[in-house]
Parts: sequence; C-alpha cells; structure tokens
Amino acid sequence: MAPNFQSEGEFVRWLQRLAPPRTPNVRLGIGDDAAVVRIAPDQELILTTDMSIEGVHFSRRLHPARSVGHRALARSLSDIAAMGAAPRYALVSLALAHSSGQHWVQGFYLGIRALAERFGVAVIGGDTARVPDGCFVDVIVAGEAGRGRALSRAGARPGDEIWVSGRLGLSAWGLELLKSQRRPRSTDAAAALHAHLYPEPQCGLGQFLSQRRLASALMDISDGLSTDLSRLCAASGVGAKIWAERLPILATGDPPHALTLALHGGEDYQLLFTVPARRAARLPARFHGLPLRQIGEIQRGRRLSLVGIDGNTSDLEPGGWDYFRK
Amino acid sequence: MAPNFQSEGEFVRWLQRLAPPRTPNVRLGIGDDAAVVRIAPDQELILTTDMSIEGVHFSRRLHPARSVGHRALARSLSDIAAMGAAPRYALVSLALAHSSGQHWVQGFYLGIRALAERFGVAVIGGDTARVPDGCFVDVIVAGEAGRGRALSRAGARPGDEIWVSGRLGLSAWGLELLKSQRRPRSTDAAAALHAHLYPEPQCGLGQFLSQRRLASALMDISDGLSTDLSRLCAASGVGAKIWAERLPILATGDPPHALTLALHGGEDYQLLFTVPARRAARLPARFHGLPLRQIGEIQRGRRLSLVGIDGNTSDLEPGGWDYFRK
Repeated sequence: MAPNFQSEGEFVRWLQRLAPPRTPNVRLGIGDDAAVVRIAPDQELILTTDMSIEGVHFSRRLHPARSVGHRALARSLSDIAAMGAAPRYALVSLALAHSSGQHWVQGFYLGIRALAERFGVAVIGGDTARVPDGCFVDVIVAGEAGRGRALSRAGARPGDEIWVSGRLGLSAWGLELLKSQRRPRSTDAAAALHAHLYPEPQCGLGQFLSQRRLASALMDISDGLSTDLSRLCAASGVGAKIWAERLPILATGDPPHALTLALHGGEDYQLLFTVPARRAARLPARFHGLPLRQIGEIQRGRRLSLVGIDGNTSDLEPGGWDYFRK
Repeated sequence: MAPNFQSEGEFVRWLQRLAPPRTPNVRLGIGDDAAVVRIAPDQELILTTDMSIEGVHFSRRLHPARSVGHRALARSLSDIAAMGAAPRYALVSLALAHSSGQHWVQGFYLGIRALAERFGVAVIGGDTARVPDGCFVDVIVAGEAGRGRALSRAGARPGDEIWVSGRLGLSAWGLELLKSQRRPRSTDAAAALHAHLYPEPQCGLGQFLSQRRLASALMDISDGLSTDLSRLCAASGVGAKIWAERLPILATGDPPHALTLALHGGEDYQLLFTVPARRAARLPARFHGLPLRQIGEIQRGRRLSLVGIDGNTSDLEPGGWDYFRK
C-alpha cells in the first residue's frame, strides 16, 4: 500500500489532531522545531530529536564518520537555536551496521564530542543496537530558556521584515562538490564543502534574538528557504514576498544555479526570522562575524512570491526537502 | 572490518571515558537506564531513549502496528520506572518504510497514544522520515523526580535482598507462541501473548520504591534477569546469589523451559531491585495486585550464582540480550 499522506505538513496535522497538547505545562507541542514545556516557575525545557539515516541523510562513502557524528548533533542543536534557547544535554541513539567497525564508531562519537564540547553540551545517554546494514542515528537535545522567551514559527505578522543569517546554498553546493569528487577550486567552494561536512548551528544568534526580544518568529533553514519559509508562513497564517537580489547567494560561477541553491538547498542550518519594522534598527549587520540580511517582508494572505532579478514577481513554490513528497 | 567491542558493557565503558559527565548538574550520565540532571533546586529531570528496529525488536509480520507503537513507548516508560521517576513527556522518531501505508502509521500512533494517555504522558514532538525498507523507531521519554530520589543500579550492598516484580519469562514465552501461530491453550499462555504484545511498564511501583526509600538499587528487566542482574551487580561492585525455587516461573508445562525463560527471557519490563534487610519488612507482598518476591541476596565479590532446585550451586552466566555479543 502506498503512503497516503501527501506532505509532511499533512502528516503533522494528523498527528496534532491525534495527540493535542492538553497538558497545561506544554507551551509548544508537535509541529515546531522543538517542543517547549514549563519545568519551573521561570524556566522552560526545550526538547528536540532528529534522525540521520544512511542513504537518506548521509552516505558512508561520501561522509567521514566524524562528519556523520557532527552533522547528526548539528541538526538537533540547530532546532534548539531555532527556538532561541540554550542547548544543555544530548542523548545519542545509534543503530550500527555490521559493516561499521570500531574505527567508524570512534570517529562518529569524536565528531559528536567535539561539537558538543564547543557548545557546552553534555552527552548523558542514548541507546545502541546492531543492524544488518544501514546505520541509523537519532540525536536528542534538551535545552533551556527563560519563561516565555522561546520563539516559535507562529509569530510573524504582516509588515514584519524577513531576515536570514549567513549565506544560503553553501551546504547543497558542498554536497554537489563532494559527489563530483573534484578538489574545490575557490575559497567559496572550500567553504561550501566544509559547510556541508561540518555545519555550524547558530545557537548564539538564536539566543540573542530571543533574549533581546527582536524576532516575532524564528526557525532554522534545514530543508531549504522556500520550504522552511512556507512552513513559517503557514504556522503564522501569513504570506511573504522575497527579493532575489537581496538573497545572500554564492559565487558559484553560475548565477541561476546559485539562486536555485539559495532558494531550495537544504542543511544550511542558518536562521530564518521575522522582525517587526520598528525593531529592525536594533539588528546588527553582523552577529559575531555572521552577516544578517533582510530578504523580504511578511504580507497578508497566504501567497509566497519571489521578485526576480528582472523585477517580475512569480509564485515561490516550496522546492526543498520533504520526505513525504513523491 | 568487524566490530571490536565484545559486549555492550565494553562499548558503554568506552563511551563513558570519551564523554565523562563533567557538568555539575549531571547526577547520572551514560550507563544507567536513564540520565538524571538537576533542573531546579528540588527537581530532577530524567531522560531516556530506546530504539525499536524492524527485524531486530519487532516484525511487521508478527506484531500488529498498534503493538509496535505500544512496545516502543513501553521500553522507554520502563526506563523511567527503573529510575523510580514519573514519566511526563514523549517524543517519537519514526523512519517509515515505503511499504508501510497510512493504515500502519495510524495503528502505530494509536498504540503510542493509548499507552501515553494511561500514563499521563504528553506526546510533544519527534521526527519523521521515509526509508526504502525496515521501519525504525526511537522513543524519548522525559520524566521527573524529587531531588536525590531517582534510584540508580549502583546502590546494592552485600546483605541486601534481591527482589523482582511480577512473573518472569512471560514475554519470551509469548514470542514463542506468536511465532508458532498456535492459539494459546491456557490462561497463562494467553497472558504471555498479551504480555509480549502489550507489556506494562511498572512506573507506579518504581515511584513507590523511590518515594518510600525502600530500594538501594533499581533497574528494569528488559534483556533478561541473568543479563540485567549482572549489570546491576557490576554497577554496584557486588556479587549475587539467587535461588531457582524462589523465581516466579510460569506454568508452561515444561519446568526446565520455564526456568530458562525466567532466567534469560527479555522484554518482561518487570522491576529488579535490592532492599536492605532492615527495610524488607516494609515491602508489601503485592503492589496494586502485582506480586513482589525475594529471589536472592547480594553478596561480596563479583560472582553471580544460582542455587538450583536440587540444591546445587552453579555460576549464573548472563544469557539474555546483548547486541554486541556474537
């Protein structure tokens, strides 16, 4: 039987109907980057989990073990960044293929440990199993935020400015370069390869935005700008217009290709956020060296549109990653 | 390359050396049933995660979707029970095989929801992906306990009594019956089938033991009494003697087989705990109908021994589930 859910969104809405967050302490349940529950009068616990599956999210042929570990933890750290929270603890579930030896396992955990140490995260548990083939990883991260400070996807209002951090499309370009097995021939290409293998979650920026109460909505760009912006807009009940000429695209030597990467390339783990116009002047142009840039604005209605380099406006279709799309 | 870790214990010790729990708020890290961290002056957060993998932990041919969901959540709830804590929140990661349709997914989540509701657990998040074949599930449960109340495996002392709840071997017998495709011909056989498909985590008993400070060490029997008792003894630095005639074995019609099931059968999710002799009188014979029974005593040294029905003592070798054993 073929699966009948047509998109991840449809599946998530079914799950939400099945298990409504009725517990009074649950502030955000299924459907955002992470869940938020009150655990003390002035404190909220943020919980998230992300799978990394061989053949879907990584390949043992292309990705070194250390990169597999790094990327698996980075996905979950980025979800914590996407709530404006501070990551604290991680648990790692690893189903190890029989063909993965001790050397691979050690590389994998060293990749996890190096990233965890840099973010002050304690790896406190997990689960292990052996499987015939195809490694499977699930990384859980618990974070914390002051009461009411965690930011959801649902707060964007018409007139808010749409901002992104960093450059978009680096990881997708890096994957292309990795598959081509060619040595990177420019600084940008080398940066793309590194961004794909060792992405940097933006936890510092997320906390800055939530603690200063600058953003009205916040999420990370894990599945591509077009897909993630459509999710932010759906959660907030708004539309959006973005300007191609404002996108932080790459110098790949092929501008249309760079635009496609910026719009639809996944796994950049940059932050996408909306800012009420009156607060935008308080945003720095860079946060610890990371460029921040306005790329569009939130509008009434539900339409997502793209103003091209030529000035023509077209519909922006979600073209990023959705496991449920055929 | 073949894996070089010889047992789960060896692998866990390597992980512990790699990532020691240096954070002052981490009271229990890698190696127990669940991790324990302080989150408020009088409160501890308990975190655990357990994988359920098609072909390893379940078979879509033998287990209905509802049972797969129930069992996946029950594994993690049982880890919370094993700490004497109260479960509160769950996250569910599901990698869905292309051959699993919407009907299967709905059955799976209904199994999760029914058990979650009965234990007052809110399902607040998770992750989803699609894979070519072989469903993969990881269930995270967060629980809570008063400060210092969570019980570890490490507190058993020579002279403590060894106790178990319920009957042992039910789930393993149920799996045998399920594989045989024969209709159960006795009340016990029907109970075994049900215990395998819909095991009951013992969260109430776990909290009773921790809140009354009755147990010196506590864990759940997920991989078989012989294996789990050896882990409790290793964590506590002690040995143990158990008496075959005291084991709560089943009426399978084949006593030696029932003894093997009781010693080595996994997935019973009953509790194994040690009680200082002076506190044993405060233990009821039943807890809400669930029989509690002394089966042995903790001894000095590291030896695990079994006093047989014939009165002869032999070494008790761990014969339960260990993914790393060949």
